[in-house]
Amino acid sequence: MPARPSDLDPTIAARLKRDADGLVPAICQQYDTGEVLMLGYMDDEALHRTLTTGRCTYWSRSRREYWVKGETSGHQQWVKSVALDCDADAILVKVDQVGAACHTGDRTCWDADVLDAVAGERPKQSS
Amino acid sequence: MPARPSDLDPTIAARLKRDADGLVPAICQQYDTGEVLMLGYMDDEALHRTLTTGRCTYWSRSRREYWVKGETSGHQQWVKSVALDCDADAILVKVDQVGAACHTGDRTCWDADVLDAVAGERPKQSS
Repeated sequence: MPARPSDLDPTIAARLKRDADGLVPAICQQYDTGEVLMLGYMDDEALHRTLTTGRCTYWSRSRREYWVKGETSGHQQWVKSVALDCDADAILVKVDQVGAACHTGDRTCWDADVLDAVAGERPKQSS
Repeated sequence: MPARPSDLDPTIAARLKRDADGLVPAICQQYDTGEVLMLGYMDDEALHRTLTTGRCTYWSRSRREYWVKGETSGHQQWVKSVALDCDADAILVKVDQVGAACHTGDRTCWDADVLDAVAGERPKQSS
């Protein structure tokens, strides 16, 4: 069930699978370069606003309020496309990001903390 | 706290921020094309195995077991890099995906359900 009242299209709301807090993770990606910018969370109304205003809106779990990305920082996310995944429990939003997506000032939220990893290599015969 | 015993490097485990089930969302991206392939979940041990084996390992929330991507389907994910985000509560794994990432046979989990969205356009003066 939605956690808060929402104007989201009922045909979308009916198939959305939310977590215990009524939220769905939303991956935000730069539409042309493919950079994964950040991961936010949307409730039904945040998704509705993202679909209808041309700007990304999230639910801030810490502040417990709607958060129009860039409203204070100026680093807006202009929406290019929105899709639900195969299980309707994860959203992919492609945007045009103005400036830094990360609150640290980095372009993306994954720029600063790359872990040591053993790289894998596909066998030559697989395609 | 980790939900299950793990050999994850304690310096990584100490800063990892897990949800109530001990999990962290992991975005999986094709390393060269930038396609966002799927969203999975990792506990400490799944992250450890992803970092050390060259293959993506998730925690399956439905089956409640470790899940080496591609073990039954043949659609392996060969690890290229792993990073934590600025809050250490989301993982980005860049991989070389063999075949389809989605269990439906689609290349990515977002190929089939694109929503109608009003597109936004950045003002001409912003950079």
